[in-house]
Amino acid sequence: MITGIFAPIPTPFVGGEISYDHLAENIAKWNQTGLAGLVVMGSNGEAAYVDEDEKVEMWAFTRKHLSPDKLLVAGTGQESTRATIRLTKKAAQAGAQAALVLSPNYFKANMTPAALERFYRDVADESPIPVLIYNMPANTGINLSSALVTRLANHPNIIGVKDSSGNIVQISETIKGSPEGFSVFAGSASFLLPAVVMGARGGTLATANVVPDLCVKIYELALQGKIAEAREIQMSILELNALVTSKHGVAGLKAAMDMAGYFGGEPRRPMLPASDEAKAEIRQALERLGRVVR
Amino acid sequence: MITGIFAPIPTPFVGGEISYDHLAENIAKWNQTGLAGLVVMGSNGEAAYVDEDEKVEMWAFTRKHLSPDKLLVAGTGQESTRATIRLTKKAAQAGAQAALVLSPNYFKANMTPAALERFYRDVADESPIPVLIYNMPANTGINLSSALVTRLANHPNIIGVKDSSGNIVQISETIKGSPEGFSVFAGSASFLLPAVVMGARGGTLATANVVPDLCVKIYELALQGKIAEAREIQMSILELNALVTSKHGVAGLKAAMDMAGYFGGEPRRPMLPASDEAKAEIRQALERLGRVVR
Amino acid sequence: MITGIFAPIPTPFVGGEISYDHLAENIAKWNQTGLAGLVVMGSNGEAAYVDEDEKVEMWAFTRKHLSPDKLLVAGTGQESTRATIRLTKKAAQAGAQAALVLSPNYFKANMTPAALERFYRDVADESPIPVLIYNMPANTGINLSSALVTRLANHPNIIGVKDSSGNIVQISETIKGSPEGFSVFAGSASFLLPAVVMGARGGTLATANVVPDLCVKIYELALQGKIAEAREIQMSILELNALVTSKHGVAGLKAAMDMAGYFGGEPRRPMLPASDEAKAEIRQALERLGRVVR
Amino acid sequence: MITGIFAPIPTPFVGGEISYDHLAENIAKWNQTGLAGLVVMGSNGEAAYVDEDEKVEMWAFTRKHLSPDKLLVAGTGQESTRATIRLTKKAAQAGAQAALVLSPNYFKANMTPAALERFYRDVADESPIPVLIYNMPANTGINLSSALVTRLANHPNIIGVKDSSGNIVQISETIKGSPEGFSVFAGSASFLLPAVVMGARGGTLATANVVPDLCVKIYELALQGKIAEAREIQMSILELNALVTSKHGVAGLKAAMDMAGYFGGEPRRPMLPASDEAKAEIRQALERLGRVVR
Repeated sequence: MITGIFAPIPTPFVGGEISYDHLAENIAKWNQTGLAGLVVMGSNGEAAYVDEDEKVEMWAFTRKHLSPDKLLVAGTGQESTRATIRLTKKAAQAGAQAALVLSPNYFKANMTPAALERFYRDVADESPIPVLIYNMPANTGINLSSALVTRLANHPNIIGVKDSSGNIVQISETIKGSPEGFSVFAGSASFLLPAVVMGARGGTLATANVVPDLCVKIYELALQGKIAEAREIQMSILELNALVTSKHGVAGLKAAMDMAGYFGGEPRRPMLPASDEAKAEIRQALERLGRVVR
Repeated sequence: MITGIFAPIPTPFVGGEISYDHLAENIAKWNQTGLAGLVVMGSNGEAAYVDEDEKVEMWAFTRKHLSPDKLLVAGTGQESTRATIRLTKKAAQAGAQAALVLSPNYFKANMTPAALERFYRDVADESPIPVLIYNMPANTGINLSSALVTRLANHPNIIGVKDSSGNIVQISETIKGSPEGFSVFAGSASFLLPAVVMGARGGTLATANVVPDLCVKIYELALQGKIAEAREIQMSILELNALVTSKHGVAGLKAAMDMAGYFGGEPRRPMLPASDEAKAEIRQALERLGRVVR
Repeated sequence: MITGIFAPIPTPFVGGEISYDHLAENIAKWNQTGLAGLVVMGSNGEAAYVDEDEKVEMWAFTRKHLSPDKLLVAGTGQESTRATIRLTKKAAQAGAQAALVLSPNYFKANMTPAALERFYRDVADESPIPVLIYNMPANTGINLSSALVTRLANHPNIIGVKDSSGNIVQISETIKGSPEGFSVFAGSASFLLPAVVMGARGGTLATANVVPDLCVKIYELALQGKIAEAREIQMSILELNALVTSKHGVAGLKAAMDMAGYFGGEPRRPMLPASDEAKAEIRQALERLGRVVR
Repeated sequence: MITGIFAPIPTPFVGGEISYDHLAENIAKWNQTGLAGLVVMGSNGEAAYVDEDEKVEMWAFTRKHLSPDKLLVAGTGQESTRATIRLTKKAAQAGAQAALVLSPNYFKANMTPAALERFYRDVADESPIPVLIYNMPANTGINLSSALVTRLANHPNIIGVKDSSGNIVQISETIKGSPEGFSVFAGSASFLLPAVVMGARGGTLATANVVPDLCVKIYELALQGKIAEAREIQMSILELNALVTSKHGVAGLKAAMDMAGYFGGEPRRPMLPASDEAKAEIRQALERLGRVVR
């Protein structure tokens, strides 16, 4: 069973190209934390802007530099079933221990529960590594219901779900309806504590790139039943979390990393870098957390 | 400070007219429970279908039959500021101890944060009783943001908010940004435990009409830090809650009450009574809770 | 069969109370135009903010001052079937020749096509005057599909629909599926020409309060097959129309009326008057049409 | 200036692989029609499911078999600016005369008007062939406003827009605000006539794959001012159009092609083939048009 806090890492670009030096530096820092692992080529990795070859390279490089006790989860969801399976196999070969598979979503009228169920079963049947479902309605425009996810939770090669909907009722229903070993992960740090209280096994959190220790602390305190202490930290990161997710997206996350001691850099086009106003907001939020280093 | 679990009661109709006999019977039963009070003329009271005179009568009757240690909260929100103030004054005169004020919502383009803030300030300035904000986006199509609610939380006559959005992050932000004495209430039993964990002071819950003891139990266990026990009950009522709210609405709630020993009856037109299929689902959910009495 | 261009008039308030002097002045001006009639207590009449007694007075007063060859249509839709029937009967007694009935919409989960169909049949059965369906999804959050409307179009006392969705395909489907004598009206001047080209019988248009002659001209030219000339006028009013509907709503409409020689005045609270920025935009649009008189 | 009716062709798969024999047969039939050209690798081409190499092959093959007097438009929009430019250059080399560029859409919070404007300018600056903007909100969850499109319409290498929003007001505003030589295309046959009446230069229509002659006829009659005759055909294709677009998507379109004498075949996974119920509806609609050949 996979548990704990994962950081879905951004891809560091310099001049539009991947900078492996900066990636190595970031990984070295994350290695020192209580993170359970890294997700490479999730939404925050700008997977939609990265070519297939680059993805494979990113996975191999990360696996090489990542502490052996930490898991490498590869984001491998593509629109077509065949491309998803192909990429998942490459991820496994590159050293990924699990695949996080985004729901296909372009043909919204056709992405019925039946089509989506078939998609995940087809991928899980062929994948050499365990599959995590990835529900990201804010970006995909499609929600994977608890009814669908709990049906899929019985597939032997589907081991969990990252739910970024923020819908705590749906998360509760999924936990209730899934087998014991199936892991539900909070998809955003803003609802980590309530999700863990309801039985989530951890989180895959943009904010964990910037303040991994705080995210890990919330999780651990919650498991120990120290709710009041966990709540205090949870409350303290709400503002930062909103700025690096819903408000300014990956551009905001990268700006926050630059301020907090990691390398963030600029996103690939067409995503624009965070504006000066956005950066000022982010700096203020980080200052309130005492995390500005430059 | 208002705290605890409230039931937003349905209005009992027989042949389309309010049946005060059935109302008295229901109140007598709720008097025996740990409920903190009743909300009369909230959404579940079919307030939108009930005339102003009937509302005043309902409040006066309920206050007379309700146990003196329980609070009467009156739903008084209307589209116009003047009608809301007028009705809130009548509610106070009829014995209500607080007013739950739904956001006006018909003119969506004009209901800006500034207009809504002004509305609540105008109402609170004139109201003889404390005001609770009511955020019900599923019905109104308008969400009251945590930024707006926390600004209003500083008004001396605004004492809390019922948030039915189910957005646990928004609820957390509101709690974080409000003064100590401001009460945030979960607007649905499906997220009662996570809301209380984050600092909510109770809930106003359709499901509390049917299984008030279970709702009260979740709240009390959460306050005592008995999270695992609270979670078990929370999980057990998810199914029933969905059936009497998002899935079948007030018609479903009334059907559930009829099965569980209260009088539900039929809604007013144009709302149709629950279908036979809906009733079968509801019966099954109640059976799983061991609460079917007829 | 009802045809032509109708103005859904705003309610003139002075100090929050209806000003019948200003209403009489406005009606006198509209009497001089090619309008087929007025709608009193539609959305633009702030019906949601006006009491039942006031509505009846408005209808009676308008019928008395309105040119006998022009129709009075009363907006009578309420949330409950009984209140809608009661109000429709009062409208008929006050002299209205037809009722424009907004769809009930608060209980969104329960307002199924079956419930809405039953609502309109119940109202039409009891109404002493012919009924027009009113589809206004931007405000109600509910769309009346062409499938539903064409089923209702066969009721002998339902004579038409005002469709404000702006969905030209839905409007086309409704026209195609309705009996010959059923009138489909464009609900906004921004799509008047395309609607008439597809077979609409006219429009009920906020903009017709301000520039009734231009709206009437588009309709007449379209009927005469003078498409190029109609298009030119249609294009010329797009900007004004957006400002007095989707962008600034009734507050914008009232500001435009004040500039164009009618009495607009301020809306009732909680609707705020148009901001200075909004007024400047509206003035500019009216200037481009050569319609600013003060 | 590009004008006329285009068919955005489906990609014919047999056993999951592209069947060039079937493609050649389809093209031979479309060559006999009044279509102005074909769009290859638009939404209906399942572009999201087709690899880059396959796309290039599809363009080259189509250009070779397509009648020289018909245009080849290539769908080249990708999420990143660099991938879009790369693919557009390949399309030009493969013989495409214009590129239809879908808006990037995954990172919805970051796809601001500024980011989208920059995207289209960057692509148009680098593209060897003229660019058509593609607005497809039903699939992308992002709408390109008339304000944005008319700003882009002044770029010398951006020659038009395919607007599939169905928003006739937006289409009118775009036509009004664009230079004379900029072509606005209806993105669905269901609103072809109203769009052309407002000044659209043609359409890119899924339905034009199945009944190209009817689509061309509507366009030509509208240009000749024969509105009544155009309307009759427009009304006759509403049902079929809904079935092969919003209701059953590409799977429905392929089923309709199979019945009407073209090769449709099955979509790639995860899109499921049309159900038997869907096929029965489609057959009925085609029978009403007298177009079933098998």
